Amino acid sequence: MVAERIAVLTDFGYEDPFVGIMKGVIDRIAPGTEVIDLAHGIPPGDIRRGALALWQAVEYFSPGTVFLTVIDPGVGSGRRALAMASGAQLFVGPDNGVFSFIMGPGWQAWELSDPSYQLGGGATFHGRDIFAPAAAHLCRGLPPESFGPCIGDPVVLPRPQLDAPQSGLLRGEVLYADRFGNLLTSLGRFEQAGDILHFRPWLEGLTSLMLQPTEALLELPDGLRLRLLRTFAEIPEGECAGIIGSSGLLELCAFNDSAARRLGLGPEAPISLHFEVVTP
Amino acid sequence: MVAERIAVLTDFGYEDPFVGIMKGVIDRIAPGTEVIDLAHGIPPGDIRRGALALWQAVEYFSPGTVFLTVIDPGVGSGRRALAMASGAQLFVGPDNGVFSFIMGPGWQAWELSDPSYQLGGGATFHGRDIFAPAAAHLCRGLPPESFGPCIGDPVVLPRPQLDAPQSGLLRGEVLYADRFGNLLTSLGRFEQAGDILHFRPWLEGLTSLMLQPTEALLELPDGLRLRLLRTFAEIPEGECAGIIGSSGLLELCAFNDSAARRLGLGPEAPISLHFEVVTP
Amino acid sequence: MVAERIAVLTDFGYEDPFVGIMKGVIDRIAPGTEVIDLAHGIPPGDIRRGALALWQAVEYFSPGTVFLTVIDPGVGSGRRALAMASGAQLFVGPDNGVFSFIMGPGWQAWELSDPSYQLGGGATFHGRDIFAPAAAHLCRGLPPESFGPCIGDPVVLPRPQLDAPQSGLLRGEVLYADRFGNLLTSLGRFEQAGDILHFRPWLEGLTSLMLQPTEALLELPDGLRLRLLRTFAEIPEGECAGIIGSSGLLELCAFNDSAARRLGLGPEAPISLHFEVVTP
Repeated sequence: MVAERIAVLTDFGYEDPFVGIMKGVIDRIAPGTEVIDLAHGIPPGDIRRGALALWQAVEYFSPGTVFLTVIDPGVGSGRRALAMASGAQLFVGPDNGVFSFIMGPGWQAWELSDPSYQLGGGATFHGRDIFAPAAAHLCRGLPPESFGPCIGDPVVLPRPQLDAPQSGLLRGEVLYADRFGNLLTSLGRFEQAGDILHFRPWLEGLTSLMLQPTEALLELPDGLRLRLLRTFAEIPEGECAGIIGSSGLLELCAFNDSAARRLGLGPEAPISLHFEVVTP
Repeated sequence: MVAERIAVLTDFGYEDPFVGIMKGVIDRIAPGTEVIDLAHGIPPGDIRRGALALWQAVEYFSPGTVFLTVIDPGVGSGRRALAMASGAQLFVGPDNGVFSFIMGPGWQAWELSDPSYQLGGGATFHGRDIFAPAAAHLCRGLPPESFGPCIGDPVVLPRPQLDAPQSGLLRGEVLYADRFGNLLTSLGRFEQAGDILHFRPWLEGLTSLMLQPTEALLELPDGLRLRLLRTFAEIPEGECAGIIGSSGLLELCAFNDSAARRLGLGPEAPISLHFEVVTP
Repeated sequence: MVAERIAVLTDFGYEDPFVGIMKGVIDRIAPGTEVIDLAHGIPPGDIRRGALALWQAVEYFSPGTVFLTVIDPGVGSGRRALAMASGAQLFVGPDNGVFSFIMGPGWQAWELSDPSYQLGGGATFHGRDIFAPAAAHLCRGLPPESFGPCIGDPVVLPRPQLDAPQSGLLRGEVLYADRFGNLLTSLGRFEQAGDILHFRPWLEGLTSLMLQPTEALLELPDGLRLRLLRTFAEIPEGECAGIIGSSGLLELCAFNDSAARRLGLGPEAPISLHFEVVTP
């Protein structure tokens, strides 16, 4: 696999020059490499949020992208530094679970342990000293196995709640609120096909099924039930509804308002979907 | 017209990978295209703020720039998706008025309706599925009329308040507060020429005129009157004044402080300028 | 010196198109120039924070980088506009002290006074009208002395507190809190070398020395004493400690928490380090 560009995802924010410094390091090692910002406003230390952002983004990038992912609360501790290959993409970052949701069949991982590809800068900024240099060296053609030994047990996050305890019921949880206050849930992936919704679970262990969105209801922890609608604009003013979001996950949404604020829900709130199974 | 680069303006913020995903899509369709971020912190759904940001920026970009503008609260509803040509620039975004202030003489618009230039991803992220692909195809040389039919009635926002009810009086309104708390008003465009201010209205329907800034006074809703000064540093500590801002609009400003907070004013607050007309 | 790329540092934030407009200007004057964002979330008007961010970043960039630095509360006043050369890098920005910490031996500075290299846009946005054009012209090969006269007295900020009033004592101050709530102090630069810390002062006037981190204690204004640890992860939950940060400055840190909030300290709070000198 040839690494041709770097996409950068961090929780470094925009007040400090941390991201800019990583780009300076990349430019010194691999001048001219294309660098694309994914986002740097991941909440500080929120590994799961970063892992979900990566999962949402990966399929939209050309093969041969190195995802330089630095959400790294354990920097300097015993946690390993990783390069990973999965599908046609490469990943570089801390071994803390941030790659949990992009590990496809046949993934491979290597520890970034060879100091000859690192800057010697201390124990607090591996984005600059280990991860950015590794991403840059990958773009110069260095194969990932050059950095250190193959490892078979990267850290994997607990999978979000998603099960189907009985026919016509899916149980999941709120994952997080996005910038607009839409509450993404673990219920998905759904795909609209005519009048039918295809459920093709994004987490292993469940089977696909089909349901009629007009007959389905989302149930919130307080018993409130919401309909599924197709667009934000269909939601009556002052109400909330379920919408299939851009990644195929069910989201709780309001029109031009924050559903998170309106419903008072946050991560891990249990959400159920009641529906009638459609048989093809 | 040859499209050579893409400038991106959104309200997607920096916590989610939405902007990064659009860049991934562009890179897949039109590898190597130069992409410049205009800003992604437009307040969520604030179409007028986006339209004003675009108006401020356009003239500083080389001809052949595609302005990919995604402030799109009505995504998935009946609102059309547009490509527009005006002057030497191209624009891609929702038909919700966000192009109101850049439509010059001879503008043309087309609906983005041909699905062969779209990703099939649902009804909530047209930035990824319709607008970014269109901008990328324009940079590959596709002419804008390829995407769909010409349309003659794009949505146009109500024009900001700006009139001259009598000689020596201009009436306008506050548009918004910028990052520094400067309150931009609709009073403009002004241009300093020696000791004289030229007023060359940015909205149609008014005539140009000349006035002496030292004799002019801004009047706020509560009757408070402010002088016009040339620079932030001339404003006495603890006071506010009018300044000709970087786009030629009058701004209410404080020195090293937020005029918005100090004056307690926000969008739509009426502002008048009293002056003596200078005859050349 | 050949200028080959531009790194941009501002306090313009992300709600307004100011940074995007500067990039449009650069692209018009010097098409194809590589532009790298350092950060644009420097707190409005905070010259010292900008000067420190620049100091942290410069060494990680390839020679021939133009640092376009626009933290400019005095825009339009009498303050001069500068180009500076120091080491192998170039700098462009207001003469307000923002270059204080990157001025190395043999620095040279020039006033940006020749209007033929400026846009004529008024007195409030020199980033667009003076600084971005100058950075772009440098990348087209214009030597810095073309812009105006050499000047020998650029504004320099008061140096942060850092002294050694007696053996075994360093006195400094808090500089600022970063995005994670880590409090950077003026105590530094330190470099870990085996079990020993090398202190090589980043401000002139002090001599290098060596100390044993396990025997050193940081003292806060209220008498609280903190240990020095190597990584965030070593800090016991609920406690704070001193850590050598990524720029070699001592930082007050908590694990997965904000030390700034926990300790209630901000800029200029006095911090002392008590230690036993190690003789080599």
